Amino acid sequence: MDERAALALIGGSLPTAGDDAAVVDDLVVTTDMLHETTDFPDGTTRRTAGWRAVGASLSDVAAMGADARCAVAVYAAPRFEEADLRAFLDGAREVCETVGAEYVGGDLDDHEEFTVATTAIGRTDDPVPRSGATPGEAVCVTGTLGRSAAAVRLFPEAPDRANDLFRFEPRVAAGRALAAHAGAMMDSSDGLARSLHQLAEASDCGFAVDAETLPVDVAVDDVAADAADRRELAVHYGEDFELVFTTDDPAAARAASPTPVTVLGEVTESGVEMDGEPLADRGYTH
Amino acid sequence: MDERAALALIGGSLPTAGDDAAVVDDLVVTTDMLHETTDFPDGTTRRTAGWRAVGASLSDVAAMGADARCAVAVYAAPRFEEADLRAFLDGAREVCETVGAEYVGGDLDDHEEFTVATTAIGRTDDPVPRSGATPGEAVCVTGTLGRSAAAVRLFPEAPDRANDLFRFEPRVAAGRALAAHAGAMMDSSDGLARSLHQLAEASDCGFAVDAETLPVDVAVDDVAADAADRRELAVHYGEDFELVFTTDDPAAARAASPTPVTVLGEVTESGVEMDGEPLADRGYTH
Repeated sequence: MDERAALALIGGSLPTAGDDAAVVDDLVVTTDMLHETTDFPDGTTRRTAGWRAVGASLSDVAAMGADARCAVAVYAAPRFEEADLRAFLDGAREVCETVGAEYVGGDLDDHEEFTVATTAIGRTDDPVPRSGATPGEAVCVTGTLGRSAAAVRLFPEAPDRANDLFRFEPRVAAGRALAAHAGAMMDSSDGLARSLHQLAEASDCGFAVDAETLPVDVAVDDVAADAADRRELAVHYGEDFELVFTTDDPAAARAASPTPVTVLGEVTESGVEMDGEPLADRGYTH
Repeated sequence: MDERAALALIGGSLPTAGDDAAVVDDLVVTTDMLHETTDFPDGTTRRTAGWRAVGASLSDVAAMGADARCAVAVYAAPRFEEADLRAFLDGAREVCETVGAEYVGGDLDDHEEFTVATTAIGRTDDPVPRSGATPGEAVCVTGTLGRSAAAVRLFPEAPDRANDLFRFEPRVAAGRALAAHAGAMMDSSDGLARSLHQLAEASDCGFAVDAETLPVDVAVDDVAADAADRRELAVHYGEDFELVFTTDDPAAARAASPTPVTVLGEVTESGVEMDGEPLADRGYTH
């Protein structure tokens, strides 16, 4: 069984699962595991790893339109080096501070491969699901696309810049502001294309987006081989942790959000298309 | 740096860490990682693994005297076999049901070794810390000791019985009932001896306990080689997930708790002793 089938099995057996975070009472709860071989390229500092691992879970809280309250992490490694652990904790704390959440610690585990399991908890009385998109709404994204893809290419030559790009700001403030305007919302961690397909499936709708509108990160232009590569990095690579959402009032959403909002196109009855062509359901699968 | 030093570093840098669970608002939050080589002996079923991994975190919620609300888990394995995953989910759900919590899912991760990261969340307005023990109080434990130690010995010959012993009931109801009576409380996951030392350190006190009183699990008698071995399994092995607590009214605590409560001895000014001899600070270190 591949990971998507397995996730579907989990989703089918747990009515509350299948969104960016689970909802219990007024809480949203989300958990992730990241590890060295797949998530932290050579050159990723422990500070960046702490920031990014905790940030990925805070991003899921943001995608629910919730206020991030706290996060915990398990730090698993073959050895516990004091400098590494301190740097990791610094990164974890810093990313929590950027969104007004508290980093409240966690656990350690002996593990052959450096692995981080994170959980973040948020509060909201009105979570924004993936399933609320309606044909005719605009589909939008916060920030820029391709930042993490560019970082991965930059790590060998320019590790400092790559680490800076890797330490993203989870869109918690934007998510809170957009909650009142959004029909459906999720984060772009699997890439824009996969996000649109997942929203389409959850909302039983389609999307028509315009490639010209894509807010491609400037760092992508420094690493992309050509126009096709540039689009691949922006649309399919993922790991960007921006918010993809639908709204019937994009002007109000844009005015409310502290992060720039770009309208990419609109919600349709069915099919996910870019410039009138089917957009492949392909991206980063965790 | 060994794991205890590393944990001390985390505790020192995070004022809210260092108890069984972190406290944020009216929430308690706790996270753990378990993996095959250290936590799941050969013969452990995936159902038992799911039960036990989620149960370990629920036990930390119980140790705070909190009401368990929900749990999540990351299931990391080299392959996702449908039967394995279903069994794991069954175990995770069942243990949540025993304590009135909701299992709300989690994530999957490709991983060479079968590894589970769990997080549980509880609510309480009045968490019971490790630091509240006062000389003169009684020190008590719920349930029996040595159950997991016996299971580990039974796995090769009697895996069904071992799995049954491994699926413990987290003491959430007892923890809730005892919260009103307990000065200090923690779970016995590192073994009774380590728990007493940790309570002594957090509360700046000592303990004098009587070996005759130990509620040794009947399964221990089936596997222990002799009296010394029996005491080792009951006192040092750990992984039992009972509640160790202090109280100035053991009769009231016993009457309130749905799980049997045994008085082991009393809180003293300093030193951790059993039968008048120093009790080694030795046990299972996760």
